[in-house]
Amino acid sequence: MGTIKLNNLDEMYPGQSILLQTGQLVQYGAGLFGYNTVPLLLRRKIEQIIVKTLNKYGCIEVLLPTLQPDTIWKNSGRYDTYVNDGTMLITESNKGTFCLAPTGEEAMLEFAREKLKSYKNLPVTYYQIGEKFRNEIRTRGYLLRGKAFPMLDAYSFDIDPEGMEKSYENVRNAFLEIFQKIGLDVIPIVADNGAMGGKKSEEFMLISSQGEDKILYNKETGIGLNTEILEKENYMEYLKEEYGIESIDGFEEIRTMELGHIFQLGTRYSEMMNGKYTDKDGKESLYYMGCYGIGVSRTLAALYEQCLIKDKNEKPGGFYLPENIAPFKVQIIPKMDDKGKVKIAEEIYDMLNNEGIQAILDDRENINIGAKIKDSKVLGTPNILVIGDKTDGNILELENNKTGEKLETNKANLVKILRNN
Amino acid sequence: MGTIKLNNLDEMYPGQSILLQTGQLVQYGAGLFGYNTVPLLLRRKIEQIIVKTLNKYGCIEVLLPTLQPDTIWKNSGRYDTYVNDGTMLITESNKGTFCLAPTGEEAMLEFAREKLKSYKNLPVTYYQIGEKFRNEIRTRGYLLRGKAFPMLDAYSFDIDPEGMEKSYENVRNAFLEIFQKIGLDVIPIVADNGAMGGKKSEEFMLISSQGEDKILYNKETGIGLNTEILEKENYMEYLKEEYGIESIDGFEEIRTMELGHIFQLGTRYSEMMNGKYTDKDGKESLYYMGCYGIGVSRTLAALYEQCLIKDKNEKPGGFYLPENIAPFKVQIIPKMDDKGKVKIAEEIYDMLNNEGIQAILDDRENINIGAKIKDSKVLGTPNILVIGDKTDGNILELENNKTGEKLETNKANLVKILRNN
Repeated sequence: MGTIKLNNLDEMYPGQSILLQTGQLVQYGAGLFGYNTVPLLLRRKIEQIIVKTLNKYGCIEVLLPTLQPDTIWKNSGRYDTYVNDGTMLITESNKGTFCLAPTGEEAMLEFAREKLKSYKNLPVTYYQIGEKFRNEIRTRGYLLRGKAFPMLDAYSFDIDPEGMEKSYENVRNAFLEIFQKIGLDVIPIVADNGAMGGKKSEEFMLISSQGEDKILYNKETGIGLNTEILEKENYMEYLKEEYGIESIDGFEEIRTMELGHIFQLGTRYSEMMNGKYTDKDGKESLYYMGCYGIGVSRTLAALYEQCLIKDKNEKPGGFYLPENIAPFKVQIIPKMDDKGKVKIAEEIYDMLNNEGIQAILDDRENINIGAKIKDSKVLGTPNILVIGDKTDGNILELENNKTGEKLETNKANLVKILRNN
Repeated sequence: MGTIKLNNLDEMYPGQSILLQTGQLVQYGAGLFGYNTVPLLLRRKIEQIIVKTLNKYGCIEVLLPTLQPDTIWKNSGRYDTYVNDGTMLITESNKGTFCLAPTGEEAMLEFAREKLKSYKNLPVTYYQIGEKFRNEIRTRGYLLRGKAFPMLDAYSFDIDPEGMEKSYENVRNAFLEIFQKIGLDVIPIVADNGAMGGKKSEEFMLISSQGEDKILYNKETGIGLNTEILEKENYMEYLKEEYGIESIDGFEEIRTMELGHIFQLGTRYSEMMNGKYTDKDGKESLYYMGCYGIGVSRTLAALYEQCLIKDKNEKPGGFYLPENIAPFKVQIIPKMDDKGKVKIAEEIYDMLNNEGIQAILDDRENINIGAKIKDSKVLGTPNILVIGDKTDGNILELENNKTGEKLETNKANLVKILRNN
């Protein structure tokens, strides 16, 4: 056993159950969590991938307030809807009523109206990573459906449907790249465009038995669609026209986890919220909009659930975080009762630190090496470097925490290996 | 004139007034702001300096929820205080009442109690950069006193007063280094330890006529103290005993802006909130705590106000952001009606991008070079590179946006210069 004992893990979500039992997450109430260092840094790595990728695709990062005057929601006409269905949390003060933003369309339209006054300013896609608040009827799956959660929300503004289609494709490609970099095999599937007013809508789904969504999926073509679609009138027409899907024979039902969602909104929201610019002829025209979201904490949760490692008895015992985004690349575990080994470990730790490679030096006293190795798995550190009897500091044995594979190396090569992983 | 006209700037806070007039900040209500890209990235640079420095000083980063169950505030006994004085915003839902955290002691004690159960776990200093919400009676100075604002809050946990003193000194040194790296000449001054229960308390003050605080300051020794102190009983005793100040002759009143505050709390908070660990003898003992804060948006505001540049008529016309933290180091301005020059500009932009140096390529059509230079100052970009008639791409003229100093260089050296700045 490691120093931390895992008991009666949640069968549905063993990964997050481990995070909670080991204090990496702390629950404050239904759907409200505090983050300890490793999950926080992993979340930040995900956010960095999102920012870097969206910037590469020409999107522009901003940050809008989470606490918003009720007036912007009353102006858009959505105040009553969100308050009555209990989704939006509001707070009253001597200065008026304020809303905790469940979503960002209102605030973004306010922002855009001021900046995108002329056709010369378009097209633009703005995005933000900020906290959202939703009074979920049923919080569920820990981070998967919380009351407060970080979310990426992006909004595109165009002068015509063709521009909107192009912006939509652009963000769609960015999202695919984001999930691929994070290491999640996510597929875009056809979703109901519902009452959103635009043409297309797709969800970014991770195939997972832990998911709460059911989709129809064609293994051969890789095409999927939300089962909601079948409730739509003339759905085959919609599928054919917008997505080129001719038939749904051979599709089977599978469970998935929704990590992202993209919509073409057309002019529906800009009509509701007076989203206008001056066109080439000096006339006021409505923005053609798209909106795009990724659940950041949900993506983090999905990643942890996917990275589970099991012990010999097939019981989940920790994580193997992908090397490219693991906050700490290696855990250095010296034999503590041998001062020479501790010194070697410290030198390696300092060397890696100077090279910008994050490592953990596990120099706790009175805990044996086996227990420390188990603890390193609980944190998800992908590699361990035991500095024990076997090494004099020249030849080092880097062990992969998932496969158990050992690699003989030396100090200079260690930096190269960890940097490239 | 640039493309953006500045009119009737707020005399007290011209910097933030420019940010609002130019759409870099957007106001949603009293004390509620949205950030456009440049101020957002600058804020993030400040946050990165805080994180990097505190990590270097051995502090541990976590992130606690901003939306908190009312129970943790009722348990600490501070619910009524904060609700009655109108500071804390609360939201009611079918799931109970939740508080928008005005400060983090309660949530941090909850967190610490779970992790710091034994003397073996101590000392520790945890910190977070998260949003705080305060229903300020009078929001003021734009970002200087907002209703919602990002804040660094840190908390130290020790087994005895000596440990607390050491942790306090450690964070104090970290704070000094943080402000120095940001480029703000901040001094720690003696503050009233008030009812906090500990011994020492200091405020980190920027000497500034825009500040709302008045302090007594001794120019020669660099020692300052909050005028509140004089209302304290036996204040000379307190000054002498805790800070070694023998006399306040020669101190004069000056205005300052408070950017940080540190406190020794002793056991007062751990008594209130049941903050206990098991000591060496197996007995339950109270944590000796310290708490430490930096107003992140306030620091951002102070920086902007300090970096103002004025035009020939002594009117504020923009900013010169410090080179080490400016989000974009250089604005490249090509002569747009000369395709060759545009191509050179694009090549330089790509080269800098590949080298990881953030630049802005101002390739807007139909705007003259003079106007673009003025706009670059509005964003605070420290350097400009005009690609006009004077250059063939081999010899480049890098101009400092504050001093107007021009430096002849070539492509290879440009990278070196911008990287070192």
